[in-house]
Amino acid sequence: MWFRGDLVHCPNLGELNVLYDYILGVDQSGYIAYVAPATTAESLAIIHASKEPIILVPRGSFLLPTFCDLHLHAPQFLYQGTGLHLPLMEWLNEYAFRAEESLDANPILAEKVYRRLATRLIENGTGAVLLFGTIKTETNIILARVMQEAGLRAFVGKLSMDISSRATYVEQSAESSLHSARSFVDQCHNLCAHMPAHERLVEPVITPRFVPTCSDGLLEGLGKLAAEKTLRVQSHMAEAHDQMDWVRRERGADDVDIFARHGLLTPRTVQAHCTFLGAPALSDIARRGTAVAHCPLSNAYFSAQPFRLREALQRGVRVGLGTDIAGGYDVDIMGSMRQAVAVSRMREGARIMADTNEDGQVAEGARQVNLAVDWKEALYLATRGGALALGLPAGCGTFTVGAPFDAQFIRVFSETTGEGIGSLDFFDTDKNAAKRKTLAVDMIEKWWCLGDHRNREGMWVQGRKVSAP
Amino acid sequence: MWFRGDLVHCPNLGELNVLYDYILGVDQSGYIAYVAPATTAESLAIIHASKEPIILVPRGSFLLPTFCDLHLHAPQFLYQGTGLHLPLMEWLNEYAFRAEESLDANPILAEKVYRRLATRLIENGTGAVLLFGTIKTETNIILARVMQEAGLRAFVGKLSMDISSRATYVEQSAESSLHSARSFVDQCHNLCAHMPAHERLVEPVITPRFVPTCSDGLLEGLGKLAAEKTLRVQSHMAEAHDQMDWVRRERGADDVDIFARHGLLTPRTVQAHCTFLGAPALSDIARRGTAVAHCPLSNAYFSAQPFRLREALQRGVRVGLGTDIAGGYDVDIMGSMRQAVAVSRMREGARIMADTNEDGQVAEGARQVNLAVDWKEALYLATRGGALALGLPAGCGTFTVGAPFDAQFIRVFSETTGEGIGSLDFFDTDKNAAKRKTLAVDMIEKWWCLGDHRNREGMWVQGRKVSAP
Repeated sequence: MWFRGDLVHCPNLGELNVLYDYILGVDQSGYIAYVAPATTAESLAIIHASKEPIILVPRGSFLLPTFCDLHLHAPQFLYQGTGLHLPLMEWLNEYAFRAEESLDANPILAEKVYRRLATRLIENGTGAVLLFGTIKTETNIILARVMQEAGLRAFVGKLSMDISSRATYVEQSAESSLHSARSFVDQCHNLCAHMPAHERLVEPVITPRFVPTCSDGLLEGLGKLAAEKTLRVQSHMAEAHDQMDWVRRERGADDVDIFARHGLLTPRTVQAHCTFLGAPALSDIARRGTAVAHCPLSNAYFSAQPFRLREALQRGVRVGLGTDIAGGYDVDIMGSMRQAVAVSRMREGARIMADTNEDGQVAEGARQVNLAVDWKEALYLATRGGALALGLPAGCGTFTVGAPFDAQFIRVFSETTGEGIGSLDFFDTDKNAAKRKTLAVDMIEKWWCLGDHRNREGMWVQGRKVSAP
Repeated sequence: MWFRGDLVHCPNLGELNVLYDYILGVDQSGYIAYVAPATTAESLAIIHASKEPIILVPRGSFLLPTFCDLHLHAPQFLYQGTGLHLPLMEWLNEYAFRAEESLDANPILAEKVYRRLATRLIENGTGAVLLFGTIKTETNIILARVMQEAGLRAFVGKLSMDISSRATYVEQSAESSLHSARSFVDQCHNLCAHMPAHERLVEPVITPRFVPTCSDGLLEGLGKLAAEKTLRVQSHMAEAHDQMDWVRRERGADDVDIFARHGLLTPRTVQAHCTFLGAPALSDIARRGTAVAHCPLSNAYFSAQPFRLREALQRGVRVGLGTDIAGGYDVDIMGSMRQAVAVSRMREGARIMADTNEDGQVAEGARQVNLAVDWKEALYLATRGGALALGLPAGCGTFTVGAPFDAQFIRVFSETTGEGIGSLDFFDTDKNAAKRKTLAVDMIEKWWCLGDHRNREGMWVQGRKVSAP
C-alpha cells in the first residue's frame, strides 16, 4: 500500500514536522517500509513501478499518526456526560460501580456499549487505547473481542478490587481476585493466539482499580503476576484529595509508596492522573520508568489540583493524554489536547502572578520555568508521547520506517474549492491565497483548535483501514 | 405561529425548568403570546381552533432560548484558531490590529468574513451577539447590515482608539475619533430606521477598545456620547497582567477608575474579562449596574488569572458568556459553557486545598463558599444571564409571555429510532428505556456535555426563522 501526499508528525516534544509531498509505503504486515520525498529518483522509480494504485492524499489533507487514549473506563461509556456533580469517592459508588455492575450482569448490553465505544474511538481518530473494564472476566473478554474485531489497538484491564463500598460489586478475596486476573490474562492472550503477531491488537493489562479498593495482599499478588508474565500495569494514582486522605488514614501511606512496595510502578505501568505528585515523586516515577495518563478534563471535575505536566516532562516522565471516560465526558482526544493546553496556561498564569512583585517586576527567587504547553506539544502528547507511554512498537506515533502504520487522514480544506472543511474557515487574503498552495502550519493549528470528526476521512491501524463496527 | 412540545429554559441561576408538552404561541411581531401546558382546556381549544399548522417538537427534542455571546471581535474571525502563543499586548499588534486593518482596507473581504461569521453563529445557536468591529465606520456598517440581513440580534461596536502601537491602525485624534463614533451611531440607526421596531435587530454600541488605546479626552467624549444618546457601552477591563501594568504605569490608575471617571461604567455597559477585579471592585461594578462578559477560554490564553465568577454572581453582577473570537478560538458558546464550568471547578479545587489543613480537615477561617458553577448555572449564563447582561427586552432568554421568541430547536434523540443524535449515545438499560418516554434532565446534561451542531435543527430570532446567509 502506497500513499503520496503531506505527512504531519511530532517526533519530539514541541517539534512538528510537515513532510511535504512524501511517498509512504506500508508492507503486508502493516509496517511502514518506505518514507521519502516523492520527487527523489528512488521514489519516482517506485511510483513508476507500482502495480498498486497509489492513494493520493490531496492538497489540503494530510496523514497524522492516530491518537492514543491512555485512560478510558469502557463500561462508564454507558453514562458518559451525566452525573458530574459529586466528589470522587461518592461518584464512584453512585455512578461508576453501578454502571459497571450493570454491564457485568448483562453481556448483551456490554457488547452494545463496547461496540458503540469502538465506533466513537474510530470517529475520533483514536487508534490505541488503554482501557479499564469491569471485574467480571467474561465481560472483559467481550471488550477485548470487540476491540480486536474493530481493528483497534486496545490494552484491556480486567479490574481487580477486593474491597468496595458497594457490597454487590467486589471480588470476594485477594485469592479469588488474583485467580480471576490470571484467568483473564490467559483468556485474553488466547483470543489472538491463533493470529500472526502483527494482527494481535489486544493485550491484557494488570489493573488494580486504585489503592482504596485493593488489599495489600491483592496488590502484592498483582505485582508478582505482572512480573511473572511481563504484563502492562495500570491504575489510578494520587488523583483526588478525598481519595488521598482516605488512603493515608486507612493505609498509613501514600499511593506511590503502596504501589512501589508491591512492584506495580514498573516501566510497563501507566498511572492515571498523578495530580497530587510533587517534584520528588515525579522524579521517583521517572526513575522507575512509570508513565502518566494526563486527563485534564477529568481533573477539573475530580482532582482539586492540576497535574504538574511541565515538571513531569522536564523530569523525563513519559506522559500521554487520557479522556478518562466517564470522569471526563469527551471521548475525543482533541478535547483532551485543548484542555491540557488551557490548564497548563492557567498554571503558568498562576506562576507568573506568584513570581511577580507589586511593581510588576519579576520577584527575586522566581522560577521562570514556563509551565504552559502549546498546541504542538499537546499534539506530541496525543500521538508520539502516548505511544511511548504505552510502550507501543518502535517508531509508533511517527512516520518512520519500521513503525506500524497507525494513521488518520485529516482534511482541512477542499482541494477543489479551497473551502475549509467542517468548522474551519479560510479567507482569501493575498497571503492566504498563496499559502493555500501548501499546507501551512497555521492551517494545522486551526485544525487543532477547531477540527472535529468532519475533518477525519479515514484511519488505519497496523496498516488496516478501520471503520465503525 | 404555534409550537407544541417540550421547552427547556433557565429562568434563574441554577434553575433548569423542563416544561413538558407545552403550547407556545408567537405573535406577528415575534413576541411570545401564549405559554401553557398543552392539555389545559384553553390550550386544547387553541389547538382545536388553530388555522395555522402547529409545529410539533417531537419527543427527544426541545426548544431552548438562543445563546447570547457577549464578546466577539468580528474581524478577528479572519484568523480564529491561529497565533495563540503571544502575551496580550504583543498579540494585539502582531495579529489583531493587522487583521482588523486588512478588513478596513478590503470591504469585499470584510463582507465575506462577516457573512461567514453570521453563518457560524447560526450554526451554533447564538441569537444575540455583542460585537467589536474595526475603527472604520464603513466596515462596521457592513457588519451591522450583514447581521441585520442574517436576522441576528447584533450590538455592533465601531472601535474607538486614538492611541496605538500600530501607526497605520489608529484614529488621528480624540476629536476625529469622536466624530467617527457619532457618525457610526447615526448611520447604524439609519440602517433600520425605516423598519418597524420589532424588526430592528442591530444597534450601535460605544466601544472604546480598552484603556491603553484611548486617551482620556476620547474616553470622556465617549462617555458623554453614550449618555447623550442612551447607548450601550462595551470595552475590555482588567484583563491581563501586562495590560494592567501598562495602564498603571502610563495612566497612574486602574481600568475601573478610569472608565468610572469618564462615565463608561453604566447599567448599559458590558465589560469583557474583568479577571483582575477583586471583591471590592466587583461590588463597585454591581452597584453601577455594569455587566461582565466572561470569556473563560480566552482568559486561559491571555489572563494570568481566572475571573471570580462565583464572587461576581454573589455580589449581583450581571454576567454572561463570551467567546472572545479570536482571543478564544471557538465561536460555539457551548465551548464557553463547558470551559466556564471547568475553570470554576479548578478554582474551587484551589479553594479546597487552601482551606484544608495538613490533617485533611477544614482549616479555621476557611471560607467554604463553593466557587464551582455547574452545567445548569452555565446554561443560565449562556441564555437568560446573557440576555439580562445585554439588557435585552423583558423576558428575553426565557419562554414567558411578552418575551421575544428567540429560540433554538435541539434534538437529543430520534423520536422514531430512539437513537441519540450526533455524539450522544443512549443505551437501553431498563431505566433508560422507561426514561426515553420523556426528556430526562440527564439527557439534557448529556447534550450539554457532548452536543454539537448536529443537535441543532433550527433557530428563531424575534419569531423569524434564521438560516445561513
